[in-house]
Amino acid sequence: MVLFGPAAAIGTVPDGVTVVDAPISIAKDPDPARAVRRTPESSIVQAVAAVAAGEADALVSGGSTGAALASSLFTFKRARGVHSPALALMIPVPGKPFLLLDAGANVEVRPEHLVQFAHMGAAFMEAVGGVSSPRVALLSNGTEATKGPETVVAAHAMLDGSPGLNFVGNVEGFAIGTGEADVIVADGFTGNVALKVMEGSSAALLGAVRAAALSSWRSKLGGLLLRPALRGIRDELAPEEQGGAVLLGLRRLAVVPHGSFGARGFERAIEVAARGVREDVAGRTHERLQAAGALRKASDAAASVPEES
Amino acid sequence: MVLFGPAAAIGTVPDGVTVVDAPISIAKDPDPARAVRRTPESSIVQAVAAVAAGEADALVSGGSTGAALASSLFTFKRARGVHSPALALMIPVPGKPFLLLDAGANVEVRPEHLVQFAHMGAAFMEAVGGVSSPRVALLSNGTEATKGPETVVAAHAMLDGSPGLNFVGNVEGFAIGTGEADVIVADGFTGNVALKVMEGSSAALLGAVRAAALSSWRSKLGGLLLRPALRGIRDELAPEEQGGAVLLGLRRLAVVPHGSFGARGFERAIEVAARGVREDVAGRTHERLQAAGALRKASDAAASVPEES
Repeated sequence: MVLFGPAAAIGTVPDGVTVVDAPISIAKDPDPARAVRRTPESSIVQAVAAVAAGEADALVSGGSTGAALASSLFTFKRARGVHSPALALMIPVPGKPFLLLDAGANVEVRPEHLVQFAHMGAAFMEAVGGVSSPRVALLSNGTEATKGPETVVAAHAMLDGSPGLNFVGNVEGFAIGTGEADVIVADGFTGNVALKVMEGSSAALLGAVRAAALSSWRSKLGGLLLRPALRGIRDELAPEEQGGAVLLGLRRLAVVPHGSFGARGFERAIEVAARGVREDVAGRTHERLQAAGALRKASDAAASVPEES
Repeated sequence: MVLFGPAAAIGTVPDGVTVVDAPISIAKDPDPARAVRRTPESSIVQAVAAVAAGEADALVSGGSTGAALASSLFTFKRARGVHSPALALMIPVPGKPFLLLDAGANVEVRPEHLVQFAHMGAAFMEAVGGVSSPRVALLSNGTEATKGPETVVAAHAMLDGSPGLNFVGNVEGFAIGTGEADVIVADGFTGNVALKVMEGSSAALLGAVRAAALSSWRSKLGGLLLRPALRGIRDELAPEEQGGAVLLGLRRLAVVPHGSFGARGFERAIEVAARGVREDVAGRTHERLQAAGALRKASDAAASVPEES
């Protein structure tokens, strides 16, 4: 483990951890992409450079999601044959967690992007989530193969019968919480909206339950008696347990715990990164894409992130 | 009130209600669009024809959402200057209800569609929701004007400063439950996914709370004490109170209560339809579009639904 940050503030560390003094942070910069380009001495840019140079196998950074994404996208090359990286997030639905991707890296996509996301998500869910033959679904406005915008309909046709993939077809937004898929694939715009709607509606509902529980002495007592049981739900839903978002499809893995995470969240993020490397998410993704004939061809239009040579 | 359905099953009705015997139903047909075209004698097609002929001012139909939408779209012409109708739905967030549109009528849109949805939603929220100068927002993956797919960015630029519209900019999915907008505009794909994610995640959370409340004697007692307070939330969230979805932008108003609704839901649907006609949603929409210079020009490409002549 190599830790990039202000050595004076970090102090003593356990055995096996090397501290690289990098006191400059761009975590609070309102334009992370510009800050990454202009501040090569910042801790995140130094950490990413070290990973790119092979001094470490994966990046974990929770300083600022924007800066972590921007620096990874600039510096880690795309994995061979991948059109575009995607941001994947484990959604902690009680008893039925699933992987959502893309959660925001690609606002506009082509069908072949969605197809690759399906394979990338399956490889991650198998390697890191420990799910064998993960059920992969496409998020749409109806379960029929013809439902959705042209891009989704085309992706559905390409995924249907794709070798090595357990494609279960389209799911609707209801699928949040039903456990009918282990991986749900969407473009980064729809995925991001879905993720935040989930968070927003859960927060609104929990707020209403809390207000109801404070509305009378009777309900206050009821709330007290229920509290230990509800704590179990809270722990299961805690985003820290998932370790944060993962950037898939690049030459190196980047795990981005949320800035609000405590020690437990960072511990889990490091575990996810380590497991991703050990279980070879990148290799499994490549094998899956190759078996399915879904690798990007050299003749395809160049993408914004350079490919591994 | 004119009621189309099987007279024998309907039996006696209160004064002021005329029954038209129309025993054929296409509510269970798996292909509603085809059923509408092939079954002119069905109750829904007869009811829509009567409204189109001016025998009634608005349609209320809960037999099958698909059949109600298909027959309205086929038979009611588009209102003058409207590109495409949109499906609008009041979302019952506790204390902070808002109108979401399009909830599924247009899977792919152009920026001028989103602009018209904003004005249509504002007119409805003002006329039927009783909100003066409703705050209208655009659903995106970030609050900045540059966030989102090209269509959303272009619509944002057109809406910003649009005369007569209280445009509050982009909102993210978190806005479900914060009450920061009275009308939230999206394309029909994103809107449909958001709506169903909301329903799915609320159901998952309530299911987990229910399971927790049954997990021990202590929590069972707590649940019993809390029940009356939680019943208030349930009533406030009840979709029946909103009366169902409303099809906006056609020459006639169509209100589509959900097939699962009971008497209360249909009562509210009829109230929404009556209020929409009385408060002249169509006229207000036209005025708003005209004032904003957002009316469709005669030279624009023809849409699938014919326009009022």
